[in-house]
Amino acid sequence: MLQTIPKKEDEFEIIESYFKGLTAQDGVFLGIGDDAAILDISATPKHQLVVATDTLVENIHFPSSAVSYQIAQRALCVNLSDIAAMGAIPRWFTLSLSLPRKLANNSWLKGFSSGLAEVADEFKCSLIGGDTTSGALSISITMLGEVPPGSAITRGGANDGDFIYVSGALGDGAAALSVIQGNEIKHKIDSERLLSRFYRPEPKIEFGQKLRDVASACIDISDGLVADLEHICRSSGVSANVNTSDVPIKDDVRSQWGGNCVKWALFGGDDYHLCFTVPEHLTEIVDSWSADGLSDLKKIGRMTRCNDGVPQVFLDGAAVVQQNKGFDHFGG
Amino acid sequence: MLQTIPKKEDEFEIIESYFKGLTAQDGVFLGIGDDAAILDISATPKHQLVVATDTLVENIHFPSSAVSYQIAQRALCVNLSDIAAMGAIPRWFTLSLSLPRKLANNSWLKGFSSGLAEVADEFKCSLIGGDTTSGALSISITMLGEVPPGSAITRGGANDGDFIYVSGALGDGAAALSVIQGNEIKHKIDSERLLSRFYRPEPKIEFGQKLRDVASACIDISDGLVADLEHICRSSGVSANVNTSDVPIKDDVRSQWGGNCVKWALFGGDDYHLCFTVPEHLTEIVDSWSADGLSDLKKIGRMTRCNDGVPQVFLDGAAVVQQNKGFDHFGG
Repeated sequence: MLQTIPKKEDEFEIIESYFKGLTAQDGVFLGIGDDAAILDISATPKHQLVVATDTLVENIHFPSSAVSYQIAQRALCVNLSDIAAMGAIPRWFTLSLSLPRKLANNSWLKGFSSGLAEVADEFKCSLIGGDTTSGALSISITMLGEVPPGSAITRGGANDGDFIYVSGALGDGAAALSVIQGNEIKHKIDSERLLSRFYRPEPKIEFGQKLRDVASACIDISDGLVADLEHICRSSGVSANVNTSDVPIKDDVRSQWGGNCVKWALFGGDDYHLCFTVPEHLTEIVDSWSADGLSDLKKIGRMTRCNDGVPQVFLDGAAVVQQNKGFDHFGG
Repeated sequence: MLQTIPKKEDEFEIIESYFKGLTAQDGVFLGIGDDAAILDISATPKHQLVVATDTLVENIHFPSSAVSYQIAQRALCVNLSDIAAMGAIPRWFTLSLSLPRKLANNSWLKGFSSGLAEVADEFKCSLIGGDTTSGALSISITMLGEVPPGSAITRGGANDGDFIYVSGALGDGAAALSVIQGNEIKHKIDSERLLSRFYRPEPKIEFGQKLRDVASACIDISDGLVADLEHICRSSGVSANVNTSDVPIKDDVRSQWGGNCVKWALFGGDDYHLCFTVPEHLTEIVDSWSADGLSDLKKIGRMTRCNDGVPQVFLDGAAVVQQNKGFDHFGG
């Protein structure tokens, strides 16, 4: 039997009360509150539209201990990270919020909408519409961005000989999960930094736009360096070799978790740094950025010809064995 | 504790195997398979972009007995209906599919993707991206459409004296639910028509575009005539009076359910017809359409001045009482 449909009035009130304030007017001809939003794309006719969708489900993408403010920030940042990986500029987003009735209260919704508003404000993107429904807690965001025609960075442009970079230290995401899951901590560790890496990953929006002039391919690291680099390999038709000792890892993570931290940096995911490839003649530009405060930016390997027809990732020259690819970093 | 993150490979395979074929090339610079899709909006610079989002959750928006083919069609049609209500042309959509592991099999996914493909093909819109995740069954679609600048029909343009129309017979959606829920059927009834009204509501895309020249306001009837007309009232700042005897109801529904069917037509929802208002001097045009095969198109009332400051819906001159507004049409 179907349950009672949530009353339209309730949904209307939720949208009116908590989300309507998030619609800025920049390019928004009609915002929240109609059957659809209307955007003035004709105001920016010399752009392509970039569209990314990401869904977060409770107990899969965040623990049930997370507060609504954190959940909202993570949901929006994860979507912004996809826009960053394309070298695009975020503009507008829709929100689909599925919410158990017990959470449809002022405290939860206020936390959620203020978390959303903070990130939206920082990255200058507006909520233009969406819907709320009863159901298991799940947040689906579709983010719209813009990019000058032909300048988006895809996964498919890497060539044999291009150098592989990451925009910062890896393994923080998996280390944060270990902390969230209550695993014992033996050494002094910056847990605030780690938790904020998980709940409020920093989308590399400005850095992504910088990469448009130098990167041949780019992806954001959500599933783990090896898994995501493999997507670049498949899309580009070349293989990759990573020098594992060059993969940047924060000192506190290394001293706390020792051996695990390298696995986490390679397979752990949730870091939301960018992994990108750069043709040799442009590496000088990227290397010079390291001196400009991007100290964690690191060259970690090189794309190689795909000899046997299967594009794949090698670690220090050795193919990644299947069991490592499927390494279950949240097995606790 | 967090569950194991679904393996990236699984998601990649699902998208590759079942959904990649749904990306047409019309305006799609880069489709499924990267961090984001890229659209060539510069090819249609004289349009505004229309964006609608709708989520369907199992046991709330469809029963667990529904097959995947039906669920996909309903999910896409419901979103297309929002685009129709704006008078817009559907172009592209993203899909966020949350799926319990037991349904992540070939049979379920094949049914789902073929249902989606059929509707997408009919309405000439392409799947451009999305994501799949483990979780309770839920489908969130964001639909992008286009409309010539300033010509979209919103909820907010109705004026005192405008006539109210509906594009077809109401009450079918609620009657269909009654059949789905296994309630006894005493008379001969076209249950195939009813079930298809529920699982494959007909988005009024062409009709919506026709309305751009005549309608002052428009909404699609998803929550029930009174609830949706009330949205027009609130947005436009005028009240509405409906002549209940003019509300069109199919003969088989009327003979089967007698008294209930009027309640269903007024409060039942899930009909996905358009409710729209037309200034008096343009009604002749709309009335002439009735002769052109749109036989269920019906004038059902008139917008009235909002005397006491609260825009509301009247039925045969009487205000709708609160308990009727909240009429629980799925209470079984």
